[in-house]
Amino acid sequence: MEQDVRKDRGAMLPRDLTRSVMVGDVAVGGGAPVTVQSMCNTKTADADATLAQIVQLADAGCDIIRATVPNKESLEPFARICEESPIPVVADIHFDYRLAMGAAAHGAAALRTNPGNIGSFDKVYAVIDAAGEAGCAIRIGVNAGSLDLAVAERAELTLPEKLVASSVSFVEHFENRGFTNVVLSAKAHSVPVTIETYRALSRELPQVPLHLGVTEAGTLRQGTVKNSVGVGILLAEGIGNTIRLSLTADPVEEVDVAWDLLSSLGIRRLHPELVSCPTCGRTQVDLISMAEEVSRRLSRVNAPISVAVMGCVVNGPGEARDADIGIACGKGQGLLFVGGEPLRKVREEDMVDELFAEIEARFGV
Amino acid sequence: MEQDVRKDRGAMLPRDLTRSVMVGDVAVGGGAPVTVQSMCNTKTADADATLAQIVQLADAGCDIIRATVPNKESLEPFARICEESPIPVVADIHFDYRLAMGAAAHGAAALRTNPGNIGSFDKVYAVIDAAGEAGCAIRIGVNAGSLDLAVAERAELTLPEKLVASSVSFVEHFENRGFTNVVLSAKAHSVPVTIETYRALSRELPQVPLHLGVTEAGTLRQGTVKNSVGVGILLAEGIGNTIRLSLTADPVEEVDVAWDLLSSLGIRRLHPELVSCPTCGRTQVDLISMAEEVSRRLSRVNAPISVAVMGCVVNGPGEARDADIGIACGKGQGLLFVGGEPLRKVREEDMVDELFAEIEARFGV
Repeated sequence: MEQDVRKDRGAMLPRDLTRSVMVGDVAVGGGAPVTVQSMCNTKTADADATLAQIVQLADAGCDIIRATVPNKESLEPFARICEESPIPVVADIHFDYRLAMGAAAHGAAALRTNPGNIGSFDKVYAVIDAAGEAGCAIRIGVNAGSLDLAVAERAELTLPEKLVASSVSFVEHFENRGFTNVVLSAKAHSVPVTIETYRALSRELPQVPLHLGVTEAGTLRQGTVKNSVGVGILLAEGIGNTIRLSLTADPVEEVDVAWDLLSSLGIRRLHPELVSCPTCGRTQVDLISMAEEVSRRLSRVNAPISVAVMGCVVNGPGEARDADIGIACGKGQGLLFVGGEPLRKVREEDMVDELFAEIEARFGV
Repeated sequence: MEQDVRKDRGAMLPRDLTRSVMVGDVAVGGGAPVTVQSMCNTKTADADATLAQIVQLADAGCDIIRATVPNKESLEPFARICEESPIPVVADIHFDYRLAMGAAAHGAAALRTNPGNIGSFDKVYAVIDAAGEAGCAIRIGVNAGSLDLAVAERAELTLPEKLVASSVSFVEHFENRGFTNVVLSAKAHSVPVTIETYRALSRELPQVPLHLGVTEAGTLRQGTVKNSVGVGILLAEGIGNTIRLSLTADPVEEVDVAWDLLSSLGIRRLHPELVSCPTCGRTQVDLISMAEEVSRRLSRVNAPISVAVMGCVVNGPGEARDADIGIACGKGQGLLFVGGEPLRKVREEDMVDELFAEIEARFGV
């Protein structure tokens, strides 16, 4: 199920108007669904560990994965990773243009590079030409933490202006070289800076697909909040073609949070939606544990249904009736609803199993 | 430190233009800082447990707390809770107008009630008059899960239109009765419905302070995402005076997420900001554990400084230099920066302690 909450307003979204760039067999931009990315934190030299993590991430719904290529010794294992990965693999390259050229020749679906730390434009052009020859895309990855010195020192510019100036200049260099197979990111750890930067990029470079993310966003909770609000505001405005939500945490969490964000905005949905109340002094069942268990089991159900698990009589029957399947709890028991109709009472200890038995019976998942 | 990212654009924010409503000694609306609310999930009849939870929530930064008053027997313990609570207490009332009147008389700073489930307007007027006499405010809490039947059945209206129609009608009844000490919420579990509803409320009832939240938002991760994006989009537009982020989780999590959201948008800050990278195949220290420990210890530091904990040489030195205090890690060690200057190398096992020793020495916290 793909739907976009703003489609009904009749406007073309900025993200539908960009070029389409292929990263392996996954389209980015030009009206394609917003894709979910993450990055391995295994050593690339350990191809087995990296491939195991990629499989885990792909199972969680990751569309495109990135791995660092920090040295020559990583190139052979990187080639094997590209060959055996179930999803396209992007090579993350810093400082050394020969590694970028090597990664292109060794099967990368795309290169992620910050031209600002590659050195001279001759070296950048060599990378562009190698990517062109190999048919691989390039993500230009500008970052507030590693701005080109010439731009960083321009005191008359704000940080968003610096990020935009850097990005526009790089894209122009690439296009002048005849290379348009480009995705762009310009990341910062500040949410307001991120929003202002990407709004400007979408205006100034409407042809270029944008990769969104709040970078160095912190640990699980703070990083989830910063990415949800920062990336979410942009997505809701129709800006952004692919997302990577950086968390200082297991990369699988990044993918789960990304899907929760896309689902929340009605942009793209993979798993069922869980409607569950915050509990209060009225609640007479162990709702937090129950909802956590339901949430865990729903993450293995690939169907865009809605499931309500509600604690009391105030909003419980309304929400349970409104969902595809729901339970409104009372004291030690609950009333099971399916398709808006009350079905039967179930005991607290049987609720979760009965809920999933009904999900299986009704929705075949 | 109070700052608003949109102030520099010169526009008055919708939230600055509302009336100011006092909930106990805490101002809501009329340009007051956006406040953080939560709700106890203890039994109100157990005043000791409820007060213990309130103290814990107040310590975490909760400005206003709500407790349910589900029956007559809760009124005496509720009165003690109001008397001993360090923050204003709102009584959550459903169905029974006599409980609302009782809570007003027993010391509630505000009543939260949905006029749609109180019954006739005569009963609602009795509640209004009792609140007026006791000097307590009322939050009108409209909810998609418990809409007034007459409105719920109007098939020509969308759900946001139903929530707005209900809200406008209730506010008019209150104002016609001469009662303007009102805060309004109109919650749904859908993020797009929430956004559309509150945008309309802010246009149609510009005088009324708005209490924002995505309700029944689900368990910790999904609820954090839905509230961050839904409430975040509204706050960034200058809509909303007080927030309660519903999570099916420990209420302390709601308060922590709320503060992360306000900080992310630069609206209000309580704790330091942590800048930490997502780790990758370049990282040569155990950064996830380190960042989690730093995050935990920073939550006890009440100063709006920025702290960077970065994994490698790509963006590490830039971000560590940019923060008030930071560490850029290499292999088994890191470089400590203070105020933009490199200070000294520290060993991996000493990093966190050295970081906090510097925070204490430099910022006195």
